[in-house]
Amino acid sequence: MSSDLNHWIRKIRKGEARPLARALTEVENRGPSARTLLRSLFPYSGKALRLGVTGAPGVGKSTLISQMTANLRRKGRKVAIVGVDPTSPYSGGSILGDRVRMQSHHGDPGVFVRSMATRGVLGGLAPTTADVITVLEAAGHDAVLIETVGVGQAEIEIMKWASRIALVLTPGMGDDVQMMKAGVMEIADVFLINKSDQDGAGQLENQLRSLLALLPDGTPRPSIVRTVATTGEGIDQFMESLDTCLDSPRRLIGGWKERLAAMVQQEVIEHIQRCIDDSRFEKMAHEIVEGRQNPYELVETVVAEVSNRKR
Amino acid sequence: MSSDLNHWIRKIRKGEARPLARALTEVENRGPSARTLLRSLFPYSGKALRLGVTGAPGVGKSTLISQMTANLRRKGRKVAIVGVDPTSPYSGGSILGDRVRMQSHHGDPGVFVRSMATRGVLGGLAPTTADVITVLEAAGHDAVLIETVGVGQAEIEIMKWASRIALVLTPGMGDDVQMMKAGVMEIADVFLINKSDQDGAGQLENQLRSLLALLPDGTPRPSIVRTVATTGEGIDQFMESLDTCLDSPRRLIGGWKERLAAMVQQEVIEHIQRCIDDSRFEKMAHEIVEGRQNPYELVETVVAEVSNRKR
Repeated sequence: MSSDLNHWIRKIRKGEARPLARALTEVENRGPSARTLLRSLFPYSGKALRLGVTGAPGVGKSTLISQMTANLRRKGRKVAIVGVDPTSPYSGGSILGDRVRMQSHHGDPGVFVRSMATRGVLGGLAPTTADVITVLEAAGHDAVLIETVGVGQAEIEIMKWASRIALVLTPGMGDDVQMMKAGVMEIADVFLINKSDQDGAGQLENQLRSLLALLPDGTPRPSIVRTVATTGEGIDQFMESLDTCLDSPRRLIGGWKERLAAMVQQEVIEHIQRCIDDSRFEKMAHEIVEGRQNPYELVETVVAEVSNRKR
Repeated sequence: MSSDLNHWIRKIRKGEARPLARALTEVENRGPSARTLLRSLFPYSGKALRLGVTGAPGVGKSTLISQMTANLRRKGRKVAIVGVDPTSPYSGGSILGDRVRMQSHHGDPGVFVRSMATRGVLGGLAPTTADVITVLEAAGHDAVLIETVGVGQAEIEIMKWASRIALVLTPGMGDDVQMMKAGVMEIADVFLINKSDQDGAGQLENQLRSLLALLPDGTPRPSIVRTVATTGEGIDQFMESLDTCLDSPRRLIGGWKERLAAMVQQEVIEHIQRCIDDSRFEKMAHEIVEGRQNPYELVETVVAEVSNRKR
C-alpha cells in the first residue's frame, strides 16, 4: 500500500472530517482506492451502535435523531448521522434534510452528517450504505444513526445493516398501521409513537398492540415507546433501552451472507466492464443485426476472454 | 452435441408442440441445455413479424390479438402468442388470459400460446422473452405477437424485442393520455384506439394528435388506427400497414448491445453460483460476524478462486 494511502487511512482513523468525507465519496463512487480503504478500515469497525430510524415523511425522524444525538453527546459519544433517501437523485450532503439535521449540532466536531441517495451510487444503495457505515465506525464514531424515508424494499435492505431499528409512527396513522407491510413489522425492534402529546396516541398504541399480538409465537416482541421529539420527552428512556440491546447475530449473519454474494458479483461485473468496453459491444450488436454473428456464440467467446484476462 | 439434443432441435424446428413447449421451459429456467438450444436455433430466427401489443388492463388487448391472429391465419401464417405479465407470479401457460386468448383458436395447430411471468424467470424477464421469441421463430412461426399488461419499465424493456409496437387505448382515457410517460410514447409505432364505436373516440384521437405534435422534429410519427376488437373493425387495415414495416435497425442494435452485456454478466454470475455454494457463503458470514475474517479480503480470495476455476 502506498504511503499516501497509509497517511489517508491514519487521518480517517483519527476522525478528521475532510479526509473522512473524501473516503466516503471514494467508497460511494467505487473509486480506485475504495477496496483498499475498506479492507484496511474493516478491522476497526463493528463496535458502534448502528441505529436505523425509519418512517413516513413528516413523522419527525430528523428531530428525533437530533434529540438522540444530543443524548449521546451528553455522554461524550461521537455520533455519525447517515441520511438515505432512495427517491432522491442527490447525494454527498446536498439534500434539504441535512440542514435540518445539522441545525442543533452545527459546529460540534463530535457529530458528522452524511447524505446518500439512490441514483449516482454504484453497486446498489444498501451495500454502499454498509460500506459507508464501516468507514464511519473505523473513524471512531460510537454511534451511527441511519435515517431512511419511507418503508419500501430499499429501506428494508438498508436496515439489515442496523443493529437496532426504530419505526416512527404518529397519532392519526391508525389506518395506515393496518396497511403496513409484513416485512416492515418484522424488522422493527422498537415502535416510536412520536407527537404522542397529540390526540389519538393511545388509540395508535392499542392498534399497534393488537397487530403485534398477531406475530407468530417465538418472534421477539418489539417494544413501543411514546416520544415528543420537539421537547425531547421519551428520548432518554428510549436511549437507555438501547444500552441493553445486543446485535442480533442471526440478522448480521444473514446480511453478510447475501452481501458476500453481491460483492463477488459486483467485483466480477466491474472486471467485465474494464475488459470489454462499450464500443466493442456496439460493434458486436451491429454484426448480429447484419446476420454475421450468433450472439449465443459471441457470449461464450467474451466470457472465455474475460476469464483468461489477468485481473 | 448429443444425438438426443439434435433430435430435439429437429422436432422444435418442425414446430412440434410438446418438444417446443419443453424447449421454452428449458430456456425460461436456464436449464443445462438452454445455451446449446439457443445457439443452435438462433440462425433460424430473425425473420418473423414480432408485434408487441401493450396497454392498460381492460382495453381489449387479448381480443385484438385474437383478431390479428385470425387475420394472419387467413393468409396461412403460423402464429405464436406470448403473454407477459410482469405482475403475475405464474408462468408456463397457467394465467387466466390464456384461456381467453385461446378460445377462438383452440385446436388450431397453426397457433401456439405461451405465458410468462416475472417471478420464477431466472435472469430477468426481458432477456428471457427475447430467448423465447428466438425459439418460437426458429420453430417456424411467421409472426410472434407479444402481449404485455401495463406500460411500466418492465414492459418497455420487453418491447425492445418487438419489431413493431402497438399501444392500445380506449375512449374515456383522455386524461390518462396526458399522464403517459415519455418512454411509452416514444416506443409506440402505432396507437390503436380500440372500442372506437364508443363516445369519446374522436376526442381521444384529437388529444393524441396534439400530444404527438410535441414530439421532436425528425422523430418518426406513430400512426393512429381506430379499431373495434369485438367486430374486427380496423384490424385488416392495421395488419396491412404492418406488411410495409421493416425492423428498425437502430432499435435492434441498441437492444442487442444492452443484451450482450447482460448475457455476459448472467453467464459469469451463474458460474460463480456453480463454484461457490450457499453453505460456503453461510460459513464465511459466520466467520465475519465472529470477527475471524475480513469480508473485503474474503471477496478477493473468492473472486480469484472463481476466476481460476475451469469453466
